[in-house]
Amino acid sequence: MATHRFQPTHYHTTLGPHAPVLRAAPGDTVITTCVDARGFDQHDQRVTAPGNPMTGPFFVEGAEPGDTLVVRLERLTPNRRRGWSGVLLAPNVLEPEHVPELARSGDFSARWNWAVDAEAGTARLDHPASPLHGFELALDPMLGCFGVAPEGGQAISTATSGPHGGNMDYRGFRAGVTVYLPVFEPGALFFLGDGHALQGDGEIAGTGIEISMDVQFSLELIKGQRIFWPRGEDEEFIFTAGNARPLDQCVQHATSEMLRWLETGYGIEPQHASLLMGQCVRYDLGNVFDPAYTMVCKMPKKLLGRLSR
Amino acid sequence: MATHRFQPTHYHTTLGPHAPVLRAAPGDTVITTCVDARGFDQHDQRVTAPGNPMTGPFFVEGAEPGDTLVVRLERLTPNRRRGWSGVLLAPNVLEPEHVPELARSGDFSARWNWAVDAEAGTARLDHPASPLHGFELALDPMLGCFGVAPEGGQAISTATSGPHGGNMDYRGFRAGVTVYLPVFEPGALFFLGDGHALQGDGEIAGTGIEISMDVQFSLELIKGQRIFWPRGEDEEFIFTAGNARPLDQCVQHATSEMLRWLETGYGIEPQHASLLMGQCVRYDLGNVFDPAYTMVCKMPKKLLGRLSR
Amino acid sequence: MATHRFQPTHYHTTLGPHAPVLRAAPGDTVITTCVDARGFDQHDQRVTAPGNPMTGPFFVEGAEPGDTLVVRLERLTPNRRRGWSGVLLAPNVLEPEHVPELARSGDFSARWNWAVDAEAGTARLDHPASPLHGFELALDPMLGCFGVAPEGGQAISTATSGPHGGNMDYRGFRAGVTVYLPVFEPGALFFLGDGHALQGDGEIAGTGIEISMDVQFSLELIKGQRIFWPRGEDEEFIFTAGNARPLDQCVQHATSEMLRWLETGYGIEPQHASLLMGQCVRYDLGNVFDPAYTMVCKMPKKLLGRLSR
Amino acid sequence: MATHRFQPTHYHTTLGPHAPVLRAAPGDTVITTCVDARGFDQHDQRVTAPGNPMTGPFFVEGAEPGDTLVVRLERLTPNRRRGWSGVLLAPNVLEPEHVPELARSGDFSARWNWAVDAEAGTARLDHPASPLHGFELALDPMLGCFGVAPEGGQAISTATSGPHGGNMDYRGFRAGVTVYLPVFEPGALFFLGDGHALQGDGEIAGTGIEISMDVQFSLELIKGQRIFWPRGEDEEFIFTAGNARPLDQCVQHATSEMLRWLETGYGIEPQHASLLMGQCVRYDLGNVFDPAYTMVCKMPKKLLGRLSR
Repeated sequence: MATHRFQPTHYHTTLGPHAPVLRAAPGDTVITTCVDARGFDQHDQRVTAPGNPMTGPFFVEGAEPGDTLVVRLERLTPNRRRGWSGVLLAPNVLEPEHVPELARSGDFSARWNWAVDAEAGTARLDHPASPLHGFELALDPMLGCFGVAPEGGQAISTATSGPHGGNMDYRGFRAGVTVYLPVFEPGALFFLGDGHALQGDGEIAGTGIEISMDVQFSLELIKGQRIFWPRGEDEEFIFTAGNARPLDQCVQHATSEMLRWLETGYGIEPQHASLLMGQCVRYDLGNVFDPAYTMVCKMPKKLLGRLSR
Repeated sequence: MATHRFQPTHYHTTLGPHAPVLRAAPGDTVITTCVDARGFDQHDQRVTAPGNPMTGPFFVEGAEPGDTLVVRLERLTPNRRRGWSGVLLAPNVLEPEHVPELARSGDFSARWNWAVDAEAGTARLDHPASPLHGFELALDPMLGCFGVAPEGGQAISTATSGPHGGNMDYRGFRAGVTVYLPVFEPGALFFLGDGHALQGDGEIAGTGIEISMDVQFSLELIKGQRIFWPRGEDEEFIFTAGNARPLDQCVQHATSEMLRWLETGYGIEPQHASLLMGQCVRYDLGNVFDPAYTMVCKMPKKLLGRLSR
Repeated sequence: MATHRFQPTHYHTTLGPHAPVLRAAPGDTVITTCVDARGFDQHDQRVTAPGNPMTGPFFVEGAEPGDTLVVRLERLTPNRRRGWSGVLLAPNVLEPEHVPELARSGDFSARWNWAVDAEAGTARLDHPASPLHGFELALDPMLGCFGVAPEGGQAISTATSGPHGGNMDYRGFRAGVTVYLPVFEPGALFFLGDGHALQGDGEIAGTGIEISMDVQFSLELIKGQRIFWPRGEDEEFIFTAGNARPLDQCVQHATSEMLRWLETGYGIEPQHASLLMGQCVRYDLGNVFDPAYTMVCKMPKKLLGRLSR
Repeated sequence: MATHRFQPTHYHTTLGPHAPVLRAAPGDTVITTCVDARGFDQHDQRVTAPGNPMTGPFFVEGAEPGDTLVVRLERLTPNRRRGWSGVLLAPNVLEPEHVPELARSGDFSARWNWAVDAEAGTARLDHPASPLHGFELALDPMLGCFGVAPEGGQAISTATSGPHGGNMDYRGFRAGVTVYLPVFEPGALFFLGDGHALQGDGEIAGTGIEISMDVQFSLELIKGQRIFWPRGEDEEFIFTAGNARPLDQCVQHATSEMLRWLETGYGIEPQHASLLMGQCVRYDLGNVFDPAYTMVCKMPKKLLGRLSR
C-alpha cells in the first residue's frame, strides 16, 4: 500500500509496450502530473511534443493478459491557470453542406485561452477582443486519454481509442470514478494524460478546456477476470465504454459489454438483464471527434442493488 | 383560446396529408387520448391495427409550409393499469457475434406485462413466473411518436422518423416540454401516439413500457420561421433532434440545427456559438431501434440567458 | 400479351398508392416516355416540377401483397439531344475537412450540358467556356429511379429508396435487365423515371447525364413469392440491391437477400451458399448521394448453373 | 538495380517500426515468400503464429517521411497445393436478425480445404463430405495485407488497415499492379503477406482461399511527394483506397484522395476533376470484415490520357 510520487521526464504519444517508468503493486497509490494535450506543463512550458502526451507507463506487479486492471481516479486538479480550447466545430459533426458555410462565417484558426481557477472551480474566457471575454463556466476536471498497452504488441496513437482505452474524452472519467481496463501485456502498462478542466459532450470542437494536471490514482488488480472494453463505476452508475466508428458500433460494444457485466458480475441471467436494460439503461456520448468515437452505456447501481440477494 | 376535447374513432400508421380530424386555432388546447403501440385503448381493447397508430391529424389554422408549429405537451397520463414491454435487446444494438449467443440463452418471444399506477407513479413487473416479478420502476411518461405531415406530400410510416418528427422515442418528450416542428403542409397536420409509461435510452428492447394515454397539449404557430429538424425546450435546456442513420448523421443534423438556432434565435454569431457548444453541449440518445435513429443536442438555458443582452 | 402505348400527362414525385394511369396484365408490354430529373421532356420543355418525376403508376392485374413483380427493361433510349449534369461532388462523399477546400476552388453552381447522340452512342460535353468542351463519353443508358408503391400505405419521395426500389441510381439497371420487386399494394403500382444517358458509380456529383427517355418494358408476376429487396438479373449475374445508410447496412440487406435467393431460388443450402458467396461474390455501388444509399450484391450465373442439378 | 532473394526466418503481426530484415535501394527487386494467414508455409508447416504474419520489413534506402513508396507487384504465385477458407459469412455483413438464423442452419466451425493448382490456374473444393466437393474456381492470386510502418511510431495489427495500408483484402492488388504508399518512417519499412489464391469482394466469409506464396516485387521512391492513402495503378485504372468504418468514410477518403491525385498528378483542376469523376468513377469493395473496411475509387486511364496535353 505504498504511495509513489512520480515526476515524469519523458512522455509517449502511443499506448504500447514501452519501458515502464515505475513499478507499483496492487493497492499502491501514485501521485504524478500530466502535461496538456500539446505538451505544456504546470509552468506553461512546452516540455514534449503534441498530441496527448502520456505520463507512464506504470507497471502493475502481477498483472497478466486476461486480468482486469482497476484504477481509482482519486484526484484530478488543474495545476496552472491557463487553459485553452479550439473554436471551430469539427467538420464531421456538422451536416456536410453546412461545413463550408461555417468555415466562411469567421476566423476559427486561433486557440482561445481560459483563466482557470481550481480553488474557485471556475474557468473564465480570457480573450479580450471577444464580446464573450470573461464568460464563466464551472470546472469539471476529467482525463481525456488514458489506458493500457493494447492487444498483440500494438502501439496505438493517443489520438484514438479502442478496447485498451485511449482518447475517449468522456466527461464521466472524473475524480471519484473507478475504471476497469482489460490487461493485454504483463504489468498492464497504464498511461494517462490529456487533462480537461471541463468539456462538452462529444468534444465537438476537438478540445475541452485543455490543461495540465496534478493527478492521484490507486491501482488494483482482478486476477483472471477478462473484460473486453473499458468499464467504470461512480456513485450512481456502473458503465461500459465502446470505442469505434460509427457511433452505432460504439453502442453495440458498450451494450454487449454491459450485458456481460450484468451476467457475470451481478448474476443476472441474460433474459432479465435484457428486460432491465431495455427500460433502465442510459447512454452518454464520449468524443465524436477522433478516429474512433466513444459511447457509454450506464445502469443505475440503486436498481442493481435491489436485485442482488 | 378554445379547448377541444377529441375522442378518436380511427387512427393512422403513416404521417401524411390525411384528412384532419379537428381544426384548431393557434392558442387552442386539445384534450384527447392515444392508444398504445399495438392499438389497444384505455379499456385494454384492440381498437385499431399496430404499429404506433396515431391520433390526429389536427389541422392548425393559418399554418403554411415554412412556418414553425409549436406544441406544448401539457399532460401525458397513462389511462389504464396494464403496460407491456419487449424482452429481447434489438440485434442491431449488440455486437453482431453476440446476437446468436443472446438468442440461444433464453426465450424472448413473449411480451411481459407491467402493473402501472399513474397516481403512485410506479410500474411493477407483473410476470409471476419471473424472479423479477414485482420489480418496481418510477414512471416517466412520454410520447414515443408524434409529428407533422412530411415534406413533398409524403406519407411516412410511424415506425420511423425524419425532419417531420415521427418515431423518435426520446425520453425528453415528456409533459412540460415545448416542441417545435417544421410545417410542410397547410395546417401542419399534427399527429401523436405511442405512449410510454417509461423507457430506457435508445428503446433498445424495441419498446418502452407501452401504454395508452390521456393527453393534453396546446398549439401555437411561429409564422415565417423555417426550421429543419424538430426542436424542444424544457426548464433546463433547449434541444434539437436529428433523425437518421447512422447515429453520426443524427449528431450532424442535431448539431447543425443547434448552431442555426443559436444564431437566428439568440443572435449568437457562429464563432461564439461554436466555442460555447464545444464546451457546454450535451447529447442524449433517442431510439437506436427504428429504421432512423435519433440523437438530441442540448444547450443549457441558464448559460444562454447570461448571453442575451 | 398486349402492347400498351402510354403518353403520360402527369407525374408523381412520391412512390405511393396513387391512382393508376394504366392497367396491364402479366405478359403485357408497355411503351412510354420519362421526363428527366427536373421535369423536362423530349422537347426539352418543362412539363412538371422536379425532382425525379415518375411516369405511372402502372397497375398489374392480379398482383397482391406478398407477390413478386417482374419488370423486364427492354429498351431505354434517350429521346432528345441535350443532357445535363452537376459539377460539384457531393459534400458527403468527401473527407469533411476537404469540403470547404473544394467549395473554394471554383464555381460549381451551374449545370453543364452534354450533346447526346443516341444513335452514335455518345455524349459530348457542350460547354464552350471549358477546356473540356467536346470531351466525349460512351452512352450507357439506365434508369435512376423506379419501383412500386411501398409497404403500409406509405408515399415515399423519389429522392430516396427502400425495399420498394426508388432512387437507387445503379448503373446495372440498363436495357436487357430483368428486375424483381416486392409487391406491397394491390396491382403493385409500378413507377419509373430519372433517365441517365450514363453515370459514374455512386452518382457522386448528384446527377448522371440527365435526360428524358423512350422506354419499353414488359411485366410479369410471380404469385406467392415474397422477396424483401429489389433483385435483378442480367446475362452474367443475378443481383440484389440493399437501400439504406450507412453503406454497411446496404451490404447487410443485399447480402442477406442474396443468401435467401440462393436458398429458395436455387436450392443451395445456407452452408454452401455461404461458402460460395465468400469466394465468388461481387459488390457494386449504387448511389451514395441520396438519403438512402445503395449497394448491390452479385453472383455469377455461370457458377450457379454448374450447381443446379 | 539489384535483385535480392530473401527467405524469412521470423514474421510480424503488427506493421510498425521493427528492425528491417533487408535493405534495398530504389530500383531493386525482391524475391521472397509469404506464409498464409495462419502462419503455414510452402511445406504446409506452421512456422509462426497467426494472424496475417508479415514478411519484412524491407528498408528502402533514402525513403523519408513525406515521400511516396512505389511497389510493383511483379509475381504472386501460390507455392503449395492446399488452400483453405472459412465457411460462415461474417455476422457484420448480414442483417442483424438474420445472424442467429444462419448460425442455426448448419455447422460452420470448420475450415474447408481447396486443392490449388497454380499452373492450371484452378482451385477445387477438397471436402469429400460435401456435395460441392470438386467444385472449381479460377485462381486470381492477390495479397490481402501489405503496407508500411504507420505514422507516429505506431505498431498496428495486421488484422486492420489505415493510411499505411494493412489488411485491405482488395482483389485488385494482384500481380502487375503498381502500389503507392505514404512513407511515415525512415526507410518506409515495407511488409507483405496474407496471400489469397482468390477471393470474393468484401472477404465476407473472413477469408479468401488462404495460401502461402512466392512473391516478387520491385521498389521505387518518389521523393517529396506526399500522399494520404494507398494508391494503385493497373493497365486500365488508377485507383485509391480508403480504409475506415463505416464504408461511407472509406468512400470519402478514396474520393478525396482521387481528387487530389487528378489535381496534383494530372494537372486537372478541381472543377473539371469533379465533373469527370461524377460521370466516370468506379468503386470497388475491399474487405467488410476487418475492424477497418476498404473501398476503392477508380478512374479509367484511357480517359485521363485524352486529357493530358
